[in-house]
Amino acid sequence: MPIKTVINAAGRSVPLEINGQPAIPFKGVGKHKPGGRKYSPPIPACSDYPDDGNKVVGSLEEALRKCGLSDGMTISTHHHLRDGDLISNKVFEIASSLGVKDLIWFPSASFPCNDPVIKYLDDGTINRIEGSMNGPLGRYVSEGKMKGTAVLRSHGGRVQAIQDGEVRIDIAVLAAPTADCFGNAKGTGGHSACGVIGYAKADYLYATRVIVVTDNLVDFPCFPMEIEGNYVDYVVVVDRIGIPEKIISGTTQVTKSPDRLLIAELTASFLVKSGILKDGATIQAGAGGTSLAIAVFVHQILKEKGWKSKFGFGGSTKYMVKMLEEGQMGFILDAQVFDLDSVKSIENNPNHVPYPVFNAYNYHSKGNLTSMMDIMILGATEVDLNFNGNVVTHSDGYLLHGIGGWQNCLHARNVILPIPLFRDRIPVIVDEVTTLCGPGELIDVIITERGIAINPLRKDLIESVKGSGLPLKTIKELKDEAEKICGVPQKPKFEEDIVAAVKWVDGTVIDVVRKLKTM
Amino acid sequence: MPIKTVINAAGRSVPLEINGQPAIPFKGVGKHKPGGRKYSPPIPACSDYPDDGNKVVGSLEEALRKCGLSDGMTISTHHHLRDGDLISNKVFEIASSLGVKDLIWFPSASFPCNDPVIKYLDDGTINRIEGSMNGPLGRYVSEGKMKGTAVLRSHGGRVQAIQDGEVRIDIAVLAAPTADCFGNAKGTGGHSACGVIGYAKADYLYATRVIVVTDNLVDFPCFPMEIEGNYVDYVVVVDRIGIPEKIISGTTQVTKSPDRLLIAELTASFLVKSGILKDGATIQAGAGGTSLAIAVFVHQILKEKGWKSKFGFGGSTKYMVKMLEEGQMGFILDAQVFDLDSVKSIENNPNHVPYPVFNAYNYHSKGNLTSMMDIMILGATEVDLNFNGNVVTHSDGYLLHGIGGWQNCLHARNVILPIPLFRDRIPVIVDEVTTLCGPGELIDVIITERGIAINPLRKDLIESVKGSGLPLKTIKELKDEAEKICGVPQKPKFEEDIVAAVKWVDGTVIDVVRKLKTM
Repeated sequence: MPIKTVINAAGRSVPLEINGQPAIPFKGVGKHKPGGRKYSPPIPACSDYPDDGNKVVGSLEEALRKCGLSDGMTISTHHHLRDGDLISNKVFEIASSLGVKDLIWFPSASFPCNDPVIKYLDDGTINRIEGSMNGPLGRYVSEGKMKGTAVLRSHGGRVQAIQDGEVRIDIAVLAAPTADCFGNAKGTGGHSACGVIGYAKADYLYATRVIVVTDNLVDFPCFPMEIEGNYVDYVVVVDRIGIPEKIISGTTQVTKSPDRLLIAELTASFLVKSGILKDGATIQAGAGGTSLAIAVFVHQILKEKGWKSKFGFGGSTKYMVKMLEEGQMGFILDAQVFDLDSVKSIENNPNHVPYPVFNAYNYHSKGNLTSMMDIMILGATEVDLNFNGNVVTHSDGYLLHGIGGWQNCLHARNVILPIPLFRDRIPVIVDEVTTLCGPGELIDVIITERGIAINPLRKDLIESVKGSGLPLKTIKELKDEAEKICGVPQKPKFEEDIVAAVKWVDGTVIDVVRKLKTM
Repeated sequence: MPIKTVINAAGRSVPLEINGQPAIPFKGVGKHKPGGRKYSPPIPACSDYPDDGNKVVGSLEEALRKCGLSDGMTISTHHHLRDGDLISNKVFEIASSLGVKDLIWFPSASFPCNDPVIKYLDDGTINRIEGSMNGPLGRYVSEGKMKGTAVLRSHGGRVQAIQDGEVRIDIAVLAAPTADCFGNAKGTGGHSACGVIGYAKADYLYATRVIVVTDNLVDFPCFPMEIEGNYVDYVVVVDRIGIPEKIISGTTQVTKSPDRLLIAELTASFLVKSGILKDGATIQAGAGGTSLAIAVFVHQILKEKGWKSKFGFGGSTKYMVKMLEEGQMGFILDAQVFDLDSVKSIENNPNHVPYPVFNAYNYHSKGNLTSMMDIMILGATEVDLNFNGNVVTHSDGYLLHGIGGWQNCLHARNVILPIPLFRDRIPVIVDEVTTLCGPGELIDVIITERGIAINPLRKDLIESVKGSGLPLKTIKELKDEAEKICGVPQKPKFEEDIVAAVKWVDGTVIDVVRKLKTM
């Protein structure tokens, strides 16, 4: 029986049921009132835990068995070890060897190192992944090979789903660079330091069972307690939780592409001329080459003007750390760390503060950090004439990226997308985005190497740069210009089958990804 | 209709219902398996909170009105401002002026400064207090004047009750020495610093509405975030949240009484001769004069032997801080702060770490700090021949104290009660405690100025001090000795009416306090 679909408030056809669970169609930004109550995990009792606080067991397999690993369970992991993660795959290797089937893997993100889980999708160990899927995993989903339907959520949407009980984690397997025998754990120390492990917060708060896996067991108390031992069932000590050089890639480098540098310069120029960048302005940028170039320009401007950003929100990079250290930024609030300088900074600088996504991005809490940010620099795979954005599929229709914090960050005061006009001769600005990830009403400015388009809704911004000499264009003009150079690319063709649902920050379904028609 | 009572596992007659809610009789230490799920507060949505994160409203009354203050609600407060608290009473003054009735006050403790709430008990604004009641408040309850039945819980039992939904907080009013406009808050800074505000953790996590009241509003972000702004509804800025000299009394002084000093010396001697005090031993003592004297002796011994306690758990005092600073203690984990030296220490010493009771004492979590402590020094108003302890009533039957962390601390490896043989010529050791707060099986050693009694269950301890020259006696011998000096005091006489229930750490009812028969 085909699943019933409806047209949601964004005009997208979405199902009323995903993986057998009822789904709520997107109602518009800020329109869905959740009602109901937060999820309530089972009540544990101290009498079931060792008096001496020592929860160390012999192996991850033993811990998983003690947690009652069985068919259909939801297993969560975090992505702080990035492409150096040695634990996530291990969980499914064990599950597969135990003959466990139909698991739901609920990572906070996945990386190329996770491609091996394809074999556990193939052999039925894993029913589906609810989380970001990049590269081969995304391709696998797009080709309709995954048994269950993928669910894509933003970082904030993920913790919202945990808190609200949309996703009920049976076992959270949380790798930790440093931990004590009680399960208190943190992201610094040892040889697998990743800076912070704040993505694990919702997981340990709400999972029925929590396993901490570490390669650096220290005496109690391990602090700061990013994971609180009172929520932890078992601690597993292994040789290596990660491959250090892949945890922190060290490759966060400013772009060298002349086009991207031009975009970065234009962005910096826009920030100054529009008056958005000013003393005290709060800033968030990413770790891409263009973002880093923007960070360098912004730093320079702050220095010259004698201004100071009140705070920036990480993922942190050495460029933010430099702002902090040289006095152009008051604080870095940080949910993940992208390079070694940032790991050192968060370990040593009291003004570089761990700030979990649970606190920064959870839309079903009493306020978010994102709406307090003045300047938000984001990317996109596609933007359309209504300023709608796509970050998960490419114009060829393949699922290629997770949402990350992108949707959450759209709630900032000024959302700026510095993006190239085309990538590999495929225009980035399109009539209608392949997959809708964020409504255009939240996206304010598109900055390309050939001009800047301001969302007509932002009359104030348009006014602010009048006569500034900036290359202002309409988004239609930008699109036409790109198509003049590249031509209009063929649209991908899809089957009816829904292979992934894209959730909005409030848990409603904003769009879906359909199975690609193979040629 | 009289409430049905049963005899619980400790032999005490307890009701099956308290304040109209079903109650579970005590089943024995570690015997009650809670089952069920944690409490789940309502799901909020960011769209109902200001985008700029500024939640400051004009007054506490405005905040209470916006929170929908109404009849029958449960209002929680913390006690970190101790006898200098200017906020708790204010809440009920406002409620009374608004004509609100039948509130339940759920403080983490009360102090003499709270005596004025008697008028709000009298005028019907407050139905009952669930929390510690000292002095006049306790007398009020003992005389049967409170409309509802008091419920006495340990610090850990309080957070267990919140987490498990036995107490559902409608509005938490949380005074904070420092806060930002978003509601992030901490116990240091400003002119009302109290060190930590960790007793507020369960409150803000589980209350439907949370009000932070501060007299020191700082720029966002206020950190460390002992209260996380994401859980906060409103922030109120007032002139003064407390009277500084009463928040930190500065009167934590080593006893000068020769008898108490003798008890302290005997205790130190016992700790050494039994081998309990050794390199690495973890220690918790209180802030009473005898405890402080013991801390000083222990510090001396550690120094002489070149030993170091791994960590101590606060309430911290300058004597613990000295151990930390001079290298005889690795860390102080701290839930409350008793003097100015400790406030300074927790603000500046990275090894003096806030550690909320929610993490240390919640018996319905995955392990407690208390069972990891080697040496636990506690007091009692009465101990009986079975080593059962009482901390809430005196031998005259009056309710005079809260339980504090006492019940939770009984889970330590070695629980030692240094107590005088008599107070005001009333023997402390009795046939049977007036009110049972802790089962004798958890109390290991009674140390008085006239001898030491070891619980016969602790054969290992008895063995360890054989031939040590310590004045070992049976508890019966100690009791007889006291009665030889003081005589046998008259037992208080009680009515049938239950005025207070005493909960065990797992939420079951271990005993009750009955209305005193007035002469």
